[in-house]
Amino acid sequence: VFHLGRCWSVDPLLSSSYLLQDSRGRPKEIPHNEKLLSLKYESLDYDNIENQLFLEEERRMSFGGFRCLEISRWVVCGLIGFLTGLVACCIDIVVEEMAGLKYKVIKENIVKSTEAGGLSISLILWAVLNCAFVMVGAIMVACFEPIAGGSGIPQIKCYLNGVKIPRVVRLKTLVVKVLGVMCSVVGGLAVGKEGPMIHSGAVIAAGVSQGRSTSLKRDFKMFEYFRRDTEKRDFVSAGAAAGVSAAFGAPVGGVLFSLEEGASFWNQMLTWRIFFASMISTFTLNFFLSIYHHKPGDLSNPGLINFGRFESEIMSYNLYEIPLFIAMGALGGFLGALFNVLNYWLTIFRIRYVHRPFLQVIEAMLVAAVTVAVSFTMIYFSTDCQPLGPEHSEEYPLQLFCADGEYNSMAKIFFNTPERSVRSLFHSQPGTYNPLTLGLFTLTYFLLACWTYGLSVSAGVFIPSLLIGAAWGRLCGIFSFSAAQLGGIVRMTLSLTVIMVEATGNVTYGLPIMLVLMTAKIVGDYFQEGLYDIHIKLQSVPFLHWEAPGTSHWLTAREVMSSPVTCLNRIEKVGTIVDILSDTSTNHNGFPVVVKVSHNNEPAKLCGLILRSQLIVLLKHKVFVELARSRLNQRKLQLKDFRDAYPRFPPIQSIHVSQDERECMMDLTEFMNPTPYTVPLDTSLPRVFKLFRALGLRHLVVADDENRVVGLVTRKDLARYHLGKHGLEELHLAQT
Amino acid sequence: VFHLGRCWSVDPLLSSSYLLQDSRGRPKEIPHNEKLLSLKYESLDYDNIENQLFLEEERRMSFGGFRCLEISRWVVCGLIGFLTGLVACCIDIVVEEMAGLKYKVIKENIVKSTEAGGLSISLILWAVLNCAFVMVGAIMVACFEPIAGGSGIPQIKCYLNGVKIPRVVRLKTLVVKVLGVMCSVVGGLAVGKEGPMIHSGAVIAAGVSQGRSTSLKRDFKMFEYFRRDTEKRDFVSAGAAAGVSAAFGAPVGGVLFSLEEGASFWNQMLTWRIFFASMISTFTLNFFLSIYHHKPGDLSNPGLINFGRFESEIMSYNLYEIPLFIAMGALGGFLGALFNVLNYWLTIFRIRYVHRPFLQVIEAMLVAAVTVAVSFTMIYFSTDCQPLGPEHSEEYPLQLFCADGEYNSMAKIFFNTPERSVRSLFHSQPGTYNPLTLGLFTLTYFLLACWTYGLSVSAGVFIPSLLIGAAWGRLCGIFSFSAAQLGGIVRMTLSLTVIMVEATGNVTYGLPIMLVLMTAKIVGDYFQEGLYDIHIKLQSVPFLHWEAPGTSHWLTAREVMSSPVTCLNRIEKVGTIVDILSDTSTNHNGFPVVVKVSHNNEPAKLCGLILRSQLIVLLKHKVFVELARSRLNQRKLQLKDFRDAYPRFPPIQSIHVSQDERECMMDLTEFMNPTPYTVPLDTSLPRVFKLFRALGLRHLVVADDENRVVGLVTRKDLARYHLGKHGLEELHLAQT
Repeated sequence: VFHLGRCWSVDPLLSSSYLLQDSRGRPKEIPHNEKLLSLKYESLDYDNIENQLFLEEERRMSFGGFRCLEISRWVVCGLIGFLTGLVACCIDIVVEEMAGLKYKVIKENIVKSTEAGGLSISLILWAVLNCAFVMVGAIMVACFEPIAGGSGIPQIKCYLNGVKIPRVVRLKTLVVKVLGVMCSVVGGLAVGKEGPMIHSGAVIAAGVSQGRSTSLKRDFKMFEYFRRDTEKRDFVSAGAAAGVSAAFGAPVGGVLFSLEEGASFWNQMLTWRIFFASMISTFTLNFFLSIYHHKPGDLSNPGLINFGRFESEIMSYNLYEIPLFIAMGALGGFLGALFNVLNYWLTIFRIRYVHRPFLQVIEAMLVAAVTVAVSFTMIYFSTDCQPLGPEHSEEYPLQLFCADGEYNSMAKIFFNTPERSVRSLFHSQPGTYNPLTLGLFTLTYFLLACWTYGLSVSAGVFIPSLLIGAAWGRLCGIFSFSAAQLGGIVRMTLSLTVIMVEATGNVTYGLPIMLVLMTAKIVGDYFQEGLYDIHIKLQSVPFLHWEAPGTSHWLTAREVMSSPVTCLNRIEKVGTIVDILSDTSTNHNGFPVVVKVSHNNEPAKLCGLILRSQLIVLLKHKVFVELARSRLNQRKLQLKDFRDAYPRFPPIQSIHVSQDERECMMDLTEFMNPTPYTVPLDTSLPRVFKLFRALGLRHLVVADDENRVVGLVTRKDLARYHLGKHGLEELHLAQT
Repeated sequence: VFHLGRCWSVDPLLSSSYLLQDSRGRPKEIPHNEKLLSLKYESLDYDNIENQLFLEEERRMSFGGFRCLEISRWVVCGLIGFLTGLVACCIDIVVEEMAGLKYKVIKENIVKSTEAGGLSISLILWAVLNCAFVMVGAIMVACFEPIAGGSGIPQIKCYLNGVKIPRVVRLKTLVVKVLGVMCSVVGGLAVGKEGPMIHSGAVIAAGVSQGRSTSLKRDFKMFEYFRRDTEKRDFVSAGAAAGVSAAFGAPVGGVLFSLEEGASFWNQMLTWRIFFASMISTFTLNFFLSIYHHKPGDLSNPGLINFGRFESEIMSYNLYEIPLFIAMGALGGFLGALFNVLNYWLTIFRIRYVHRPFLQVIEAMLVAAVTVAVSFTMIYFSTDCQPLGPEHSEEYPLQLFCADGEYNSMAKIFFNTPERSVRSLFHSQPGTYNPLTLGLFTLTYFLLACWTYGLSVSAGVFIPSLLIGAAWGRLCGIFSFSAAQLGGIVRMTLSLTVIMVEATGNVTYGLPIMLVLMTAKIVGDYFQEGLYDIHIKLQSVPFLHWEAPGTSHWLTAREVMSSPVTCLNRIEKVGTIVDILSDTSTNHNGFPVVVKVSHNNEPAKLCGLILRSQLIVLLKHKVFVELARSRLNQRKLQLKDFRDAYPRFPPIQSIHVSQDERECMMDLTEFMNPTPYTVPLDTSLPRVFKLFRALGLRHLVVADDENRVVGLVTRKDLARYHLGKHGLEELHLAQT
């Protein structure tokens, strides 16, 4: 999840006053009852920036040009799918090989020690190996790229929602993420490699669609048209979908995930492209894995996680089981909420005390060591021996103190990668595990998984949740409890149903899964939010939900907007612009352009809107109208200049403007958006909200009945209003 | 499909000039090269009508009130699901029983006649029975409710898109639809009962959510809050999803269908409610059918159509089969396009010559008779005898001239309901059908299905398409051809994939189905649009697609808008309002309210927007400010008065306003929307389009930089621009 040591966060539970941290990680107290919204996150602009340059380009483009653009969108989506599948395949093979090697070495040692005595050496060997892997993973995340920690799903949710999380779609993040997840899975933590695939897919999409890498300083001069927030967002949703698709072999589930989490405006063509990317991703992974498994061309087993085949006969169910499913869902929702509450407290503890990279690495290693110690103890004291069957060829059965031809049943779940444990729990013969084994396993794994999520390592929570649920379910003899536990923790209903159905490969259980997930969601929501939402909220991200809070009709744009607004004249003095941009106390990103600013704060007539990033490019290229000369002298700026600077526009401090230049003028007419959306002062908050959400806006100008600028509504103004336990609450803004 | 004899339509293929029909069905020629857009369709308003009354109600409503509203939304969705499932169950049982009876009677007659000679008597008996059923169905549709003809899917698409198709969600339509579909399926036409379920679900939703029936004059005083277009639309999408869900046992497919066809703005809560309705619908149907099939409580076989169980082992596939899938998809797309082109010509023929109810009934009976004759001939001359197995207990095997213990294989497909034929084609032992039988069947059924679609009977095209595809597929030994044929005809990719996967109950074939459907869509689109789109276009419906045409950036609101606009003053004379509303030549539905209308057509300042329907209610309740007296005399109108009149507002002609009253004034302040969305004159068409589509608008005011009304953009202004073969085309508007 988010790197929680680096920003402001809120703690309503652990102390009487809210706990905050400043940018250096020092704790800071603020008065009780104040909730915060961080101002450090910039917004993305998912509305097309339509200025004269853009419109001219669009008008020049022929019918064939548009068709060409459409085809290249499909090509990019195909590439995204292919690369995501390849990365998933790579992770899978490396994890399989390394984990296989590790378990083999330890097993040999254990076998030797069981006979000769001195099992503590094996324990130490196991612990050292795991800690080494986890240390590498944790150092990479904590020291090089904190944003690559966790599953990355909350970050992608925020990105698709329109919040710019710094460095979230960079190449470096991808590298750290991929290597990190390998380390943490091989390191034996209670984590999955599925969640991080979604983040990886998104980074791949953001990279491929831009046709260049800023980190590597390579520009392939391709796909330049796609260098803006709105196009990039579409590709990132395709990448996230491709990630889900590769992780679970669930292409339709991937599309639904992207839509459930991200898209605001549903567009049919876009959906099909996302679907295409998902399809290609599953195909690619499936194809390469089939070669790796020596069954080249056998495409029937897609996805990183594979639940194996469920026979329809076993899966049929009856009407009287429905109350059972509902009860299961309720229990799953309750346990999920418990997991989330524990993790919430833990996260706050981490924000408070574990914010230095050094401590984070130590904590990760501690968790790895404890995981090994607990596993070892459980295995050591377990007396559950089972006869060895032919189905164990791919696993690492430990005989330990069992009779010959038998193996330790506890070791079958603990001494294995989590994916294999899940499969084993689903498919092993009845009687493979005795209830005590399962009960102990469930309890310890629940606590371990809860402790693990939020560490500074790349890791997903899907597989651990499924594993806990599968163990519970096995205990009661019911398959679909795994879904209940997962649903109770992450709370995605529709997409999760489809993912589970696609992953099990059997539709028969679709209806019970739905029922279970829906109950789990309703029950879980009663106690606590979903895990991802908790982490988003702890970050004070200005996240916009689907609708305005129910009871907010009495609020109007007048109350919500920021006012007075810093406006610019259509032809403005360079010095004024530089001063406004350099003003760190306001740090505005969008400026209404007006006909004439009067000096007594009287509002002036709106004629456009210009963004900070555009002004920066103009200043950098010194597009000034010198006062003495005619306009002809002005350098003609192309749309390309803006696209080249996207998305890492230089800060204003890096641009040098001489004293002479400060006296020049800048003509903004060509570069501003001449038709920004406006609302009247009396527009109700739900109406403003709908406009914002449906169009993906970043700035909305509030105008009076003379079309004069009286205010500006931004994402943060809307995200401030929030439905609490007792009705509408207003969050305070915190500048960091 | 639409009742094509009642409106204007366009024929670019059959004649050198376009063919039109006026409202009485008389043909009328208009000049060549003019395409039309019908003005007879009103729009729906999917934006919330926010006036003072509404806002006051919202502000009065407590936090608990909103929760209560949310719960009642879930209750309504549950009810919709339950009733839809019940209706589907009812249709299924009636069709099963009646068809069983019919086939039994005919079989007995055939058996008797085969021995005694005189098979022509059997033919006549069969034909008469079928024609009788079809006649009843056709008379109901043609004479009582033409809108109930066809599958209803194009109409529901239009409704969700925001076009008001008259009478499409009325109780009478539902009754005719349900009885009609029973008649046409029992009547042996090449139709399915699945498509109409979508329409039925939508009607049920529209009825239940309003808490009253205008046709039955019963008002249950419930759900009054939902009596407006935007809430009703949400429920109708839930109903359509529940319909799909009941028809195919595909709840997720249902949700996706609703979203793919209808939703513009994706809202998570709404999606979950739709999903809930779908789930309940499948459950209900499944439960009642399980009782009917004497396996009470066995919920493993949802849906009206049931493809039976596919074993995973048979379904696995390999990499080298992928080109085969693509080829299959391409062929399916081509054949689908052929089907659509043939049906397109046929529809134009029907518009031209078969527009009287009498002729329509005759045509339907003719098709029924021809279907029987063709089937009989094929069976009679078939020499394909197969041994009788134990699996035929539920069918009606005909021995005819085969040896004892054998049956006629052609009769197995022709002498059966289409659903059973599909299942038999999927699951029968290899060798059940010889290639000649399959080839002949495919060809004849293709032509019969093509002729049947568009008749004045309630009927769906899903099952016939699947049956043709299944027969082709059986011929080549490939299952997924059935999907290719269906995809080639209807062209829904994502939802269709999920529907097919859910209906087969096996995810293994998910990837090939996707691949096949996508190829079928791409190939099919190259030749001709999807069947539903063709019928929507032939109706000249102002349908808005997902995005503005690609090459339309050079168009601005200035060119697109209607101007000058009929505006009203905030306090307006009753006589003026009555005159404006009575003006049939303009027939406007929304009026900007301005501060002061000047008489020399100078634009005035915008201060609100009021709808025709609101004015009608005001006039009906005589909410006048008498000039001499104070405002206190005005009757206080409640939001309830508007809701009671919704959606069948009386026409202006039915409201009597005396000469004295004409001199009174009306104060619109309280009733108008005080903050209508506006755009400047220079806003590009794609921007206007996006605003319209994302917010579900009906009217968009164009204002100049002084906020004065200079134009009004409506749905028809946008639907006029259309991407043709050679770039942007402009359709002409036709008043009917």
